[in-house]
Amino acid sequence: MSRIYEMIEICYEGPAPADSEALAAPEAVFAKAGAGEEGAETAIHVKGFYAGNGLYKVRFLPEEAGTWQYTITGDGTVAPLTGTVEVKSLAESADQAQGLLGSALHGPVRACGTHLRHADGTWFYSFGTTIYALAHQSQALMDETFDTLAHSPFNKVRLCVFPKHYNYNHNNPQYYAFERSAAGEGLTFDAEEGAQVAGMSDAKDTSVNNWDVNRPCYAFWDAFEDKLLRLMDLGIEADLILFHPYDRWGFANMPQQDNLIYLDYLLRRFSAFPNVWWSLANEYDLCMAKSRQDWEEIEQFVAEHDPYHHMLSNHNCFKPWDWSRQNVTHVSWQTRELYRVAALLQQIGKPVLIDECRYEGNVPESWGNISGQSMTQRFWQVTTAGGYCTHGETFYPGTPEAELNTQTGEREVVWWARGGRLHGESPARIAFLKSIVDSLPGPIEPAAGGLQAILLLNPEAQQKVLEQTPEGFRDFLKALLAMSPEEQERFLAFNTVYEGKVGDGDAFLIYKDTECSSLAELDLPEDKTYRIEVIDTWEMTRETVQTGASGKVKVRLPGKEYMAVLAVKTS
Amino acid sequence: MSRIYEMIEICYEGPAPADSEALAAPEAVFAKAGAGEEGAETAIHVKGFYAGNGLYKVRFLPEEAGTWQYTITGDGTVAPLTGTVEVKSLAESADQAQGLLGSALHGPVRACGTHLRHADGTWFYSFGTTIYALAHQSQALMDETFDTLAHSPFNKVRLCVFPKHYNYNHNNPQYYAFERSAAGEGLTFDAEEGAQVAGMSDAKDTSVNNWDVNRPCYAFWDAFEDKLLRLMDLGIEADLILFHPYDRWGFANMPQQDNLIYLDYLLRRFSAFPNVWWSLANEYDLCMAKSRQDWEEIEQFVAEHDPYHHMLSNHNCFKPWDWSRQNVTHVSWQTRELYRVAALLQQIGKPVLIDECRYEGNVPESWGNISGQSMTQRFWQVTTAGGYCTHGETFYPGTPEAELNTQTGEREVVWWARGGRLHGESPARIAFLKSIVDSLPGPIEPAAGGLQAILLLNPEAQQKVLEQTPEGFRDFLKALLAMSPEEQERFLAFNTVYEGKVGDGDAFLIYKDTECSSLAELDLPEDKTYRIEVIDTWEMTRETVQTGASGKVKVRLPGKEYMAVLAVKTS
Repeated sequence: MSRIYEMIEICYEGPAPADSEALAAPEAVFAKAGAGEEGAETAIHVKGFYAGNGLYKVRFLPEEAGTWQYTITGDGTVAPLTGTVEVKSLAESADQAQGLLGSALHGPVRACGTHLRHADGTWFYSFGTTIYALAHQSQALMDETFDTLAHSPFNKVRLCVFPKHYNYNHNNPQYYAFERSAAGEGLTFDAEEGAQVAGMSDAKDTSVNNWDVNRPCYAFWDAFEDKLLRLMDLGIEADLILFHPYDRWGFANMPQQDNLIYLDYLLRRFSAFPNVWWSLANEYDLCMAKSRQDWEEIEQFVAEHDPYHHMLSNHNCFKPWDWSRQNVTHVSWQTRELYRVAALLQQIGKPVLIDECRYEGNVPESWGNISGQSMTQRFWQVTTAGGYCTHGETFYPGTPEAELNTQTGEREVVWWARGGRLHGESPARIAFLKSIVDSLPGPIEPAAGGLQAILLLNPEAQQKVLEQTPEGFRDFLKALLAMSPEEQERFLAFNTVYEGKVGDGDAFLIYKDTECSSLAELDLPEDKTYRIEVIDTWEMTRETVQTGASGKVKVRLPGKEYMAVLAVKTS
Repeated sequence: MSRIYEMIEICYEGPAPADSEALAAPEAVFAKAGAGEEGAETAIHVKGFYAGNGLYKVRFLPEEAGTWQYTITGDGTVAPLTGTVEVKSLAESADQAQGLLGSALHGPVRACGTHLRHADGTWFYSFGTTIYALAHQSQALMDETFDTLAHSPFNKVRLCVFPKHYNYNHNNPQYYAFERSAAGEGLTFDAEEGAQVAGMSDAKDTSVNNWDVNRPCYAFWDAFEDKLLRLMDLGIEADLILFHPYDRWGFANMPQQDNLIYLDYLLRRFSAFPNVWWSLANEYDLCMAKSRQDWEEIEQFVAEHDPYHHMLSNHNCFKPWDWSRQNVTHVSWQTRELYRVAALLQQIGKPVLIDECRYEGNVPESWGNISGQSMTQRFWQVTTAGGYCTHGETFYPGTPEAELNTQTGEREVVWWARGGRLHGESPARIAFLKSIVDSLPGPIEPAAGGLQAILLLNPEAQQKVLEQTPEGFRDFLKALLAMSPEEQERFLAFNTVYEGKVGDGDAFLIYKDTECSSLAELDLPEDKTYRIEVIDTWEMTRETVQTGASGKVKVRLPGKEYMAVLAVKTS
């Protein structure tokens, strides 16, 4: 007996694979008689994997209730293995679903236009954080991390499959994904604590491979899956980083053939987890061992080998990935150009996730030393522009803040790399924002008008707007449009306002950002009435200042930074 | 008896001009026997003006001490008028110079490379503010304004010759520059207080002219000159705005022929003031009655009719003026793109003045509602990038802040338009910055290295840098340069660091901006030693943390925004 969105695992014993243990891939079909009038059968093909110790596993994630019959053939089987699984609907499994959160309850997250929904239709508003080497820490530290996550607003974590080597992050993990090759035998991989990494590993020679991808380290995979489950139990999506450049072990410069074997094995193990996402890389463009063609092949391979079409993207350091590509479900963008979120949404028509825009902290590196106010500001900017923002925290090890960072006694524990405790001022404010977003009747679309709106139109549409504009203001707009395209782009970067709307005027959320206005001027639909709240995004206060508001409305503001105004339709 | 940099005025009576009173222009030559071995005579040709009531005036600004002989011919004269003026040097006039400040003491400001110097070689570090309609207010309000200026850090004021009509700024002035034409007779020009101006005047019809430029209103010009003198007495440069679009009186749409008559008269009256600058416009690109050709003609006319080559620029709303033009002495840029200051200095080789980058205040308009922190931040950014920043303050009339704005009982008194009192938090911090800049051994040049430095190089120079970079970091830089030129430009906008240097390592001033670093890493010259100060730009504290520092130096910082580090050479 099982329930919808719950991973089914079928285990059987068989002889260890004669060749590659990674490539042993039993084939399975899960079929269900159709419920509709035509009675067409639903048949889903999945592949299993060798789990070590003479054990094979086949995993399946049912997204429909009913009786699923399966047949398993191939590796590890002598004759086809068959069986039946009864999958209960949500309604039928209310008791079982008690306490479940996120994808465990609502099914995998998928893109829906420029937003994200679980399989059951529930909106998923991503509020992510970053713990790159979460899974490569001591048990005590990981326990602390999960405890912190349980009390945080975050519902997505970016984490690496492979260990990470970078400033403030020098520990060896307990397990590696594969057994060592002859070349890797005896290497200790020790790094000096406090060693500086200029920008990335310079490992780009793929002719020496420390790892034998045909021999998975099963302890690694079991332990990693435990982390996926713990995230799932907290209602957190695991945005799995499949490759990254910050490496001293040699995972960043495996030959492409081995990359694909690794992915093949990973996809057969992980795809049936409801809460996994595929992030092809952290900073793909710093992975010097991989060509553009390699990345395209990896992208294609992951998309083709995941039966459930989990979220899939690729993350940049400098050069943006081409997120308009067919297999890419969403934008996963490292950038500080938050003003471009609304325009990018319009252009690309997919969800835009700002998966790195500087972190709250105090390390010397500029990517990791913004204030809690600035981190909070970024969440509000991205959110009211219709995108989704990702958090990170980097307090310098050795400072009083960082010494508090963990109860485990370990050094160099910085949240963004290793987890532990959060000490910043932004998570509480991000939780406050999340509570507002969760209370809205639907996802936020960018709604900002004014100068930025006309600048984002094509010349023909701009001409139309000019024709409809009264003469005095028309000349003003003409002066604006007299700037060259380059000047206009630069102008936009510092003249963006952040205003979102929900549905057809169901709500408006206006972020005043650094503007210290004493007055906000709203132009609400005349045919609806609204309750208006003034929100202090930093002090985390909400005050209803008007009810029954309609049309042009003036709202007094306290003349300080980081205020917002929310108008919610009441009739 | 006169002194160097002091305006000499020679008055004489004559018959009122038969034709245009504005164009009556006696010609004068001021000649001085050469002091050098060759004994060549210095001869300066200037023109005088009709001052009303049968009085003609010729003004001359001596920039050399000695005996000047003059001859005046033309309008108002029957026979040539001749005479002699003894001009004392600074050394000879120490008593007389007691209490003099700025240009009155050191002579007119002129560009020197990317910086500004008075005629006597004294550096002029511009710390400007904006009071557009300063000269069009009641005597009581102007008195209050000058009193405020006397206690402020500002040494340049942008102010308009013509009155200004805009939001929070609706009063009629006491005097207009000219008598009315038949078309202007009887017009009251009254505007409702609180009236909103969309963006600018839509006055662009030059066929109706309310003003007779051939009949100057002498009371206006006398009163205006009083303001120039009062500014001069405070050591403040008058950045005179000759045209602007915010107009309901008709000065913005005079025909070009009349514009030139106005300028001709103005230049003959004002050029001999040591502290005047020519700002052709505030927001030239919103002046719809003037074509590009008109502006070029105006630029040429002003340059040719000013015997002293005062500072001359043109100020934009959107489209930057072409400040590389020969007669333009400096950049006068309205922009929020402060990250471009260093690159523009390098490209244009002239001083860059950011004459509007948003104002401290709380009006609803985004140009006028930044915090005191943000205004202060902009000064630090521009200053450490080697440019000069200009202040403005716009507290909303009617808010508690603004009601305090004046003791005169007048309404709509906002500093940026009308003067009065300052209430913001930035002026004290700007004074603090000025005290630091004044203490440096010379002007600041941009010195920021890192990613922005390589992005600003041409491809050939970038290639050279790559060749000299160790392999690991080279790949990182290659990834950076893999961005398209557009992507690189956008990247720069949010990845600029602000670091200045003085001379050949005489001092370094590093602004940490919003970075909350706990540590600053300096790379000082090995062959010099430095005193290092940690500066809190907001709390206005300076603390010497190291002496005798050299080479690579680490400085602890408190991990908060708006810190700076200063290193001054001690040997």
